Amino acid sequence: MRIVDLPGMDIAQFLVALIAIFAAAKLFGELAERVHQPAVLGELLGGVIIGVSGLHLVDPHDVTIRLLAQLGVILLLFHIGLETDLKKLIQVGGSATAVALVGVALPFAGGFALGYLLGFRLMIAALLGASLTATSVGITARVLSDLGHLKDDESQVILGAAVVDDIIGLVLLTIVGTLAEGGALSTLAIGRIILVAFGFVFLAIIIGSQLAPYLIRIVSRLQIARALFFASIIFAFTLAWVAQRVGSAVIIGSFAAGLVLARTHKAEQIEREVYDIGQFFIPIFFVVVGAAVDVASLDRRYIFVGLALTAIGIVGKVAAGFVVLKRGLRRIVVGVGMIPRGEVGLIFAQIGLSTKLLNTGLYSAVAMMVLLTTLVTPPVLRVLLRQHTPEELHGASDFVMEAPSDDLKS
Amino acid sequence: MRIVDLPGMDIAQFLVALIAIFAAAKLFGELAERVHQPAVLGELLGGVIIGVSGLHLVDPHDVTIRLLAQLGVILLLFHIGLETDLKKLIQVGGSATAVALVGVALPFAGGFALGYLLGFRLMIAALLGASLTATSVGITARVLSDLGHLKDDESQVILGAAVVDDIIGLVLLTIVGTLAEGGALSTLAIGRIILVAFGFVFLAIIIGSQLAPYLIRIVSRLQIARALFFASIIFAFTLAWVAQRVGSAVIIGSFAAGLVLARTHKAEQIEREVYDIGQFFIPIFFVVVGAAVDVASLDRRYIFVGLALTAIGIVGKVAAGFVVLKRGLRRIVVGVGMIPRGEVGLIFAQIGLSTKLLNTGLYSAVAMMVLLTTLVTPPVLRVLLRQHTPEELHGASDFVMEAPSDDLKS
Repeated sequence: MRIVDLPGMDIAQFLVALIAIFAAAKLFGELAERVHQPAVLGELLGGVIIGVSGLHLVDPHDVTIRLLAQLGVILLLFHIGLETDLKKLIQVGGSATAVALVGVALPFAGGFALGYLLGFRLMIAALLGASLTATSVGITARVLSDLGHLKDDESQVILGAAVVDDIIGLVLLTIVGTLAEGGALSTLAIGRIILVAFGFVFLAIIIGSQLAPYLIRIVSRLQIARALFFASIIFAFTLAWVAQRVGSAVIIGSFAAGLVLARTHKAEQIEREVYDIGQFFIPIFFVVVGAAVDVASLDRRYIFVGLALTAIGIVGKVAAGFVVLKRGLRRIVVGVGMIPRGEVGLIFAQIGLSTKLLNTGLYSAVAMMVLLTTLVTPPVLRVLLRQHTPEELHGASDFVMEAPSDDLKS
Repeated sequence: MRIVDLPGMDIAQFLVALIAIFAAAKLFGELAERVHQPAVLGELLGGVIIGVSGLHLVDPHDVTIRLLAQLGVILLLFHIGLETDLKKLIQVGGSATAVALVGVALPFAGGFALGYLLGFRLMIAALLGASLTATSVGITARVLSDLGHLKDDESQVILGAAVVDDIIGLVLLTIVGTLAEGGALSTLAIGRIILVAFGFVFLAIIIGSQLAPYLIRIVSRLQIARALFFASIIFAFTLAWVAQRVGSAVIIGSFAAGLVLARTHKAEQIEREVYDIGQFFIPIFFVVVGAAVDVASLDRRYIFVGLALTAIGIVGKVAAGFVVLKRGLRRIVVGVGMIPRGEVGLIFAQIGLSTKLLNTGLYSAVAMMVLLTTLVTPPVLRVLLRQHTPEELHGASDFVMEAPSDDLKS
């Protein structure tokens, strides 16, 4: 008997969804590790099985599930930011920017050409090209972390380039989204969009670095339990919100928050304190990415389009890896690390669907490209990067492999 | 520019709601502690300020916020269950049952009489009476925990009685809800409802106790990070779901899960591992309880009804405390501990509103009773129970006062 009718899920459906998400994430994560693959690969496949292509236990389009998944990726980028050395990131800044620019230009050109050759309208061809531009920094960072290679120089280039091409992707998103809806954009407006997107990151880091020490001093005077934990979470969520409001992306905001807090003397304690909450939310994101894939909507023609987009996406990013300026880096690792496309690609596909530019077949072809580029990367990186042994990892504090405080806790 | 329209909140609104909830919970929790009150009192008042009576930063009726608040109270009861000794609970079972029965009968009779005397229909009078029956075990347990008295004998009686009167409240809810919707119920059907509600708790504990050791043995063989954490969460959510499905309540299910796991040899480790996730979700519940209060909807007449309901609610439960059978217990502590009404009372009010039996004035009168009984309890219990000093608390592991692993972490 349910008397009070609510929109969305009721608590029973919500519990089933969470149980399914955690069971799938941990079961398939465990299986992936047993065959020496990163756990995230298992989480993505687990998502496919419990999602719209399989058991339908999780509706990835439900508003609550989507918000929790977004919280997961916000917390993931916050963790990644906390583990990232800003100085090291700036040192590889030239290489990262070069990789990002080439890694946006080549796939965009390739996707546009494919659409044009297949006889689609220019706007549709542009949407297909744009959907190929942005690397999913979340998936790549998680794989590097699973393998214990997050602090490598190659990983810093990948992270930097992924953040830059995410920002470029957001600029494209704003432009293409406005045009797709029939709007017009002046050169001035486009310039403003670009300025805001990049300006946010610089300002967030500069202003945030000034504010963070005061914040930590105030927090240390509070009596309440877990003041540092909540202050860090509030700081990350606030920067994520500001980023979203000024036209950047929530994950750019939380990444900036992590970068800023990483430079304070409480960085390690913050990392330990927010570890558990990340463990809860991060798998939700990866399972939901898998759960959103609809295998049934692909017929033969669109499977071809999806495979062609995937090939262009892989070749374009691997080629971009070879423009790394700095010596001594394994360029193939950088290129392969840039392959996964994620949320931004899917958002382009959804814009296309909602503005009727893309039919469900083309939408699924883009989704297929997102899935394949994501699934292919972990095993290839696994081959390229030998997994560090637990002894080598000791003290490395890669947050997904090993809890920093596990030794203390168990 | 938002292109993809979604029902419910978007990520920016969700982040604002979470920031407001955590900031209010911690700021007012801190203020409460500085004036020597339990932190939960501050969280409730903080909720009133950011909710529908104040800043409107949090919509307590939004589906996602409601689900997260419910997850908070589910995790709270799971924690309470983990800290509860089943044997001790059974030892006070006679007293707890007596307190629960009297504590349901007196307030119901009083509320019914009030409604009858004010000239309302019998069904409305019954709804008012029913809304007074169920103690909010969450709020009381949190106050006892804040004050470091969760393991006292009096607290065990309160916990046991609150669980029993919650079950009775759910039975009443099913009966009143069906009648309110114009349905009919045979004596057999009522008997079945009662049997299921109480049977669930016994079966859950018996079957759960058999299964838990196997579960823990399997988990200890897994390689994946945090297997015990996820297994415990999945176990708690599953029992909560089963409880809901068989007609009991989610919080009874998660409490039973905690009771069962408390008897395994991994109990302390589980408590440490689920501590952080509780810290995140539990304040959401208390802030949302406060945020739902609409001060503006009360006019003078309904303020009188609300005050009368509050008086009946307080007198009825304090009187019930005096039927404690066991010697050596402070009966006034038990009675006062039973005073707070929470979610079940509000659900009765919502049934009344949605079936048009209650107008918004009567609805707000019930909500006012819930708020006042909740706000009056922490300071009174604070006076009755001297707060334990940190030295006395050392090793007591009351989860809200003090993180069990804080010493290790900081």
